[in-house]
Amino acid sequence: MNRIGIDIGGTQLRVAAYDEKGNELFKQAMPNDHSLGPAENLQRLVDCIESWGIDYEGIGIGAPGPLDFANGRILTPPNLPGWENFEIVSFFWNATKHKAYLNNDANVAGLAEALRGAGWGHTSVFYFTVSTGVGGAYIYRGEIVGGANSCAAEVFNMVVNEFEDVRPTMNKGSLEDQASGTAIGRLASKKLGRTVDAAEVFALYEQGDEAARQVIDHAADTLAKAVHDVCCVVDPDVFVFGGSVALHNPWFIDLVHEKAKKLVLNPTTLRFELARCGGDAGLVGASLLVK
Amino acid sequence: MNRIGIDIGGTQLRVAAYDEKGNELFKQAMPNDHSLGPAENLQRLVDCIESWGIDYEGIGIGAPGPLDFANGRILTPPNLPGWENFEIVSFFWNATKHKAYLNNDANVAGLAEALRGAGWGHTSVFYFTVSTGVGGAYIYRGEIVGGANSCAAEVFNMVVNEFEDVRPTMNKGSLEDQASGTAIGRLASKKLGRTVDAAEVFALYEQGDEAARQVIDHAADTLAKAVHDVCCVVDPDVFVFGGSVALHNPWFIDLVHEKAKKLVLNPTTLRFELARCGGDAGLVGASLLVK
Repeated sequence: MNRIGIDIGGTQLRVAAYDEKGNELFKQAMPNDHSLGPAENLQRLVDCIESWGIDYEGIGIGAPGPLDFANGRILTPPNLPGWENFEIVSFFWNATKHKAYLNNDANVAGLAEALRGAGWGHTSVFYFTVSTGVGGAYIYRGEIVGGANSCAAEVFNMVVNEFEDVRPTMNKGSLEDQASGTAIGRLASKKLGRTVDAAEVFALYEQGDEAARQVIDHAADTLAKAVHDVCCVVDPDVFVFGGSVALHNPWFIDLVHEKAKKLVLNPTTLRFELARCGGDAGLVGASLLVK
Repeated sequence: MNRIGIDIGGTQLRVAAYDEKGNELFKQAMPNDHSLGPAENLQRLVDCIESWGIDYEGIGIGAPGPLDFANGRILTPPNLPGWENFEIVSFFWNATKHKAYLNNDANVAGLAEALRGAGWGHTSVFYFTVSTGVGGAYIYRGEIVGGANSCAAEVFNMVVNEFEDVRPTMNKGSLEDQASGTAIGRLASKKLGRTVDAAEVFALYEQGDEAARQVIDHAADTLAKAVHDVCCVVDPDVFVFGGSVALHNPWFIDLVHEKAKKLVLNPTTLRFELARCGGDAGLVGASLLVK
């Protein structure tokens, strides 16, 4: 039976329909209209689904965290002002009389990779997304492991070393404060004495700049330690890396791989892949939440 | 149907039979006779099972690692000289015509706690054993998560800080080199200038000794960081602590709990329990491997 996938972002709302083999039937994107409340905003997606005139089994939703998966509720998303505590699963039930399934954007992208992308065929897949922030997903036997507080694979706050204390809401030496695109830009700006973003730092690295080399090497060390700790906890069959920092700089992920091999118990079987589902991972993965 | 549990240790071999409700029917212990090879040694267990004259579904085996679960093989166990690469699952099949299931001792104890002990009723249980070393088990939906290399929950080598480099085979700043009973004894001996074991260090702590306080506080900090990283990866419903260091010093686990609450995203739901299955956890858990 067909399934609907919805990808909620701070700037765009997207919706697509897939048949039971995963073929895309319809897809539409629209701006997230911040002048509307969540119900009116999402009603536009409902209207779109109805206009397609198809039968479907259910609706999967990927949204930015923090979320309460179990109760189908958006909590306090920084990029979705006015959506606080919105009961999104109830909303779709009332509007469509179809069951909806909610999960966070990183988990949904990880699910797409596990079932339709670089993790296909593996029992356990650990997905890292490295972009503005650092997120993750743990997919075991084809399903997202959500955790007691919907916080499994919330790797951003992992304590990987005794590095500088950056954000007061984060742990000292957290992964995200050292290895995200934002952190790479911030740490390089400090060393260079001028403001640069992650893309510039990677370009400088390729030109042989020493400050850029130090910052990227440190980011790779930090990610390698996180990979190692994930191995100690769940020993996944494969790590899949997505997010703009990873996908634009595959050699950076190779560097993380080399460093992680020096830490893990089983270096020869430490398998790294780049994400393959592209820009629609969020939509495809959301549709795969439907049971 | 009845199930057999076998617990293989460096000093003792133990075997028990349980009915389908988990009631113990028979139990026997014997010294591990290091003058015999593994096959002759284990034949004594087979003879014992046969003497009971009962029907049973299969045999679960808990053994010290490293093991290759998938292929039913003991690898290079430091406490079982002469057992290297022994195909223990095949041995029991040939000797009894019953299917055998192999897993490591920490995983088996964790399984007992998850299904019959302190983790009962929870979807996901993370078990830590703190004794001579530090081990773990991750039980999800009533089953052990084994991992790609049979190394899930092999937490001993987690990199928790930039602390001193102790064993060359371990990572710098590893959990086991700072928080095991052995480490507590070693670190305190260094501070005190005389050889003490973990039990003495805990006694000294209770007498207000400052060196003991520092060492135990550091061990608790290190365990708290490991607990936090486990939360970031799998966000378990409950942590269960077993092993002699934990069970003899419940206040030490309370100290770890207090410290971990300061690190995790969801301190109010961070649930700690002490192991409840006692000395037979290895036997009970082994029997629960039988499917």
